[in-house]
Amino acid sequence: MQEYHLKNRPNREIKADSEINDILQRGKFAVISMCRNNEPYIVSLSYGFDAEKKSLYVHCAPQGLKIDFFHSNPRICATIIEDGGYVIDECAHNYKTVVFWGNICFVTDLEEKKHGMKILLNHLENNRNLIQEKLSKSDDYYSNMEVLRIDIKQIHAKAGR
Amino acid sequence: MQEYHLKNRPNREIKADSEINDILQRGKFAVISMCRNNEPYIVSLSYGFDAEKKSLYVHCAPQGLKIDFFHSNPRICATIIEDGGYVIDECAHNYKTVVFWGNICFVTDLEEKKHGMKILLNHLENNRNLIQEKLSKSDDYYSNMEVLRIDIKQIHAKAGR
Repeated sequence: MQEYHLKNRPNREIKADSEINDILQRGKFAVISMCRNNEPYIVSLSYGFDAEKKSLYVHCAPQGLKIDFFHSNPRICATIIEDGGYVIDECAHNYKTVVFWGNICFVTDLEEKKHGMKILLNHLENNRNLIQEKLSKSDDYYSNMEVLRIDIKQIHAKAGR
Repeated sequence: MQEYHLKNRPNREIKADSEINDILQRGKFAVISMCRNNEPYIVSLSYGFDAEKKSLYVHCAPQGLKIDFFHSNPRICATIIEDGGYVIDECAHNYKTVVFWGNICFVTDLEEKKHGMKILLNHLENNRNLIQEKLSKSDDYYSNMEVLRIDIKQIHAKAGR
């Protein structure tokens, strides 16, 4: 994968890994850019951040346009945005954001699917067990959904204004 | 351009043009997906919505990775998100969103650059004149920036949860 060096406005760059991880930990959804035959597509997906693997887990229905794109080209570029709002009279916007490049991987192993959903629910929910009891009465649940892992290969973060 | 029919969860679709326009009018920034040699990239940009032209105007520095991508392939897919927040204990997220496909056009005509910046500042600011006085002491201002127009070719909107 090509490595990108973003040189615009270096004073806005966030360099500390801990601060970058905080943005990944606090975010609730990622906006994901993908390509098929040089045509772009974009989706927003709830995620869970696996800090150990430096990966995100998402889940979705097993059919749909994004699944077709992911199968055609697993490369993605995604962003997580902390939107602090537009600053009236200053022509500025308060934000923190990460942009990262990576590959989408379809998780097929049942144990990793369970791990991914655990990461996702721990990330999003206060009481993961409550939801997991509701959703997964049996392992059949996992066969009717896609669990996807996004492995982060390169990441940039910045803050404005 | 290929026309996409998004058939997942039709009960979430927003069909009324007025409601779709409201999302475009209220949004402060768009997240834009682009492709170059089948590699994806993503940026978030403040915009102004020109309802008459069904276009968005954005502005940016004349150099940078996104400019390189736009020159290489003017096709984009973008989203504007009204984030109502994650709903704890319900495994759901409150949102309204539009996803649209279109082409990026580099505005070169000075009068259209002025029009684009007027649309942008009217959209973002309470008092456009205050900012415009600060920023544009003369027409030279416009020669040091790119004004881009995104013409919307197809748009979908949906609401969850």
